[in-house]
Amino acid sequence: MIRTAAVVGTGLIGTSTGLALSRRGVHVHLLDVDESAARVAAARGAGTFGPPADPVDLAVIAVPPARVAQVLAEQQRRGLALAYTDVASVKSATALAVSQGAVHRSSYVGGHPMAGSERSGPLAARADLFEGRSWVLTPGTETSTAALNGVLAAVALCGAVPVVMEPSAHDRAVALVSHAPHLVAALMAARLGGASRQALDLAGQGVRDVIRIAGGDPALWTDIIRRNASAIGETLGELLKDLEALTGALHALEVSGSDAEDALASVRELLLHGQDGWEAVYEPGGAPAGQVTLTVPVADRPGEVDRLIHTAEGSGIGADGIRLCWSRGSARLSAPRLAAESVRRRLADDGWRVSVTAAPS
Amino acid sequence: MIRTAAVVGTGLIGTSTGLALSRRGVHVHLLDVDESAARVAAARGAGTFGPPADPVDLAVIAVPPARVAQVLAEQQRRGLALAYTDVASVKSATALAVSQGAVHRSSYVGGHPMAGSERSGPLAARADLFEGRSWVLTPGTETSTAALNGVLAAVALCGAVPVVMEPSAHDRAVALVSHAPHLVAALMAARLGGASRQALDLAGQGVRDVIRIAGGDPALWTDIIRRNASAIGETLGELLKDLEALTGALHALEVSGSDAEDALASVRELLLHGQDGWEAVYEPGGAPAGQVTLTVPVADRPGEVDRLIHTAEGSGIGADGIRLCWSRGSARLSAPRLAAESVRRRLADDGWRVSVTAAPS
Repeated sequence: MIRTAAVVGTGLIGTSTGLALSRRGVHVHLLDVDESAARVAAARGAGTFGPPADPVDLAVIAVPPARVAQVLAEQQRRGLALAYTDVASVKSATALAVSQGAVHRSSYVGGHPMAGSERSGPLAARADLFEGRSWVLTPGTETSTAALNGVLAAVALCGAVPVVMEPSAHDRAVALVSHAPHLVAALMAARLGGASRQALDLAGQGVRDVIRIAGGDPALWTDIIRRNASAIGETLGELLKDLEALTGALHALEVSGSDAEDALASVRELLLHGQDGWEAVYEPGGAPAGQVTLTVPVADRPGEVDRLIHTAEGSGIGADGIRLCWSRGSARLSAPRLAAESVRRRLADDGWRVSVTAAPS
Repeated sequence: MIRTAAVVGTGLIGTSTGLALSRRGVHVHLLDVDESAARVAAARGAGTFGPPADPVDLAVIAVPPARVAQVLAEQQRRGLALAYTDVASVKSATALAVSQGAVHRSSYVGGHPMAGSERSGPLAARADLFEGRSWVLTPGTETSTAALNGVLAAVALCGAVPVVMEPSAHDRAVALVSHAPHLVAALMAARLGGASRQALDLAGQGVRDVIRIAGGDPALWTDIIRRNASAIGETLGELLKDLEALTGALHALEVSGSDAEDALASVRELLLHGQDGWEAVYEPGGAPAGQVTLTVPVADRPGEVDRLIHTAEGSGIGADGIRLCWSRGSARLSAPRLAAESVRRRLADDGWRVSVTAAPS
């Protein structure tokens, strides 16, 4: 366990870490080159202002990615802590810089909590920011067990789920689930900058959600993107191909020529792929390849889901052959392709309203 | 006022309309080609199942866009109601089809409530779906005042804000704030369909929000996109140009050649444009052209915002020259470009932590 900690850099992530650790009884020291930011963090209850007299159990280096290696080396020279971690969103470039600059490699564990906000600074911080979120750790071959355990303890106190990964695997994953989505949000938001007041008045929750993260700090994100350009470029290169096909299809639909049917099919295919991706994120128990997904409305009455499962089982393929995901108002059943039709018929016979929504090949 | 209504098509929007009107004492009749859907809507309290004996005050044709004109003509022939509206997301194509097929043009007002959900069907419906949302109406030159007033009454009972627009202006606006965002969400979501379990485990609220609407019904959205292809293509064509520039910049950053500085600048510019668009949607009091925006953290204490305004005024330009938008934790002040520096200095002298975040030219 850790009893004392230091947070170097009291922005959103640093201050949130301080709030979370302080709440669990850890004595946290707050440092920032901008003294007023550290004072604001202290005023919010994230810890006490200023460096500790003795080395703390763990220092969290929560400065922008470009400054991690330098600040880490400085603090190691000063003997700030027994173990160190950082929170930079890109791990390969950070690991390289740290390996070149660190004073003690054994006391450092790279880290990246998968949480954030479109707001920045200590005033946007929240003690529960990390609760239930993944917190990636990238220990190197030289990392000591003591250092790893210090960071694991802090992650646990923050209520997060530790995930150990290679830096390069982390960078590819976050390119896909964080960095590319950020740029996609920015691309859409950029189209709205010149929109008329009347058009903006029609903006509902849909577009607000699509662009929400585009409010993030451009300087921080430019730095993140610079350090993970290759992996982000791979994802966005694929997206570019899809978008080219889509704009081509829209043009074909506009002129309503002979390509219109093909164009409609390609739009529909993109939307179906989008729905597959949506299911992968929102309903991760969805249908694997070779399975068919049946969607069934389920009334908000106790026992309805059980009744649905019971009916599906009655189709003769047994419970093992069926997977079910339920969310308010509807259930998705996935069944082996060959058995799906008999399940569908059985459900329909029993009065369920079944639609076949996805049939991945 | 209206006392009786009919909803034809008891999906998400139709059933939500029925729930909202029933709650306000309107007697609603529910019709659907899929009888079980209408029965589910009735069971949820959206009205009574089946057609009325006498014409109702208003019929809401809540069927997919492709079927509006035909269903409207059928119901007008049958004499279902005194006034009719629809809820299709595209209005020019619908207006054209209606003008060719309607039995009485005077009793019809085109409509489009700006509300929805990534879930569909009567079980996803909510009585408060439209509360505070815009509800576009596109009356034609032949629309009677009585029909317009019937629809306006229903919109008011649903708690929505009526907005009268030309069909073509509506279609351009929703292409930008609804249809293009839907496709952008689908494009990003499509990249996630093949993601590894480990990458998906790192997905946080950011990407979830970006792709949330991609869960929508592909058949419905294919139809919407087909009917508004030209306006959507215009927005996505501009987005495609930005994406081409972005992937070029990512490639330049990857090879780290002489273009890297230019590449970084173009990434930063995109992110800044994204932030401008974000502000236009989230903080619509933002800085107009020729103004400079200053961002200032504001502590969560009563009186802090007033203190900030008072200090800014003290810079000598007077309250008329300053606009302020506040959201939890921070304020954005916009001031004329020439006065901004004196405002900034004054605030800094008074202990405020000011950053110049956007300076549109």
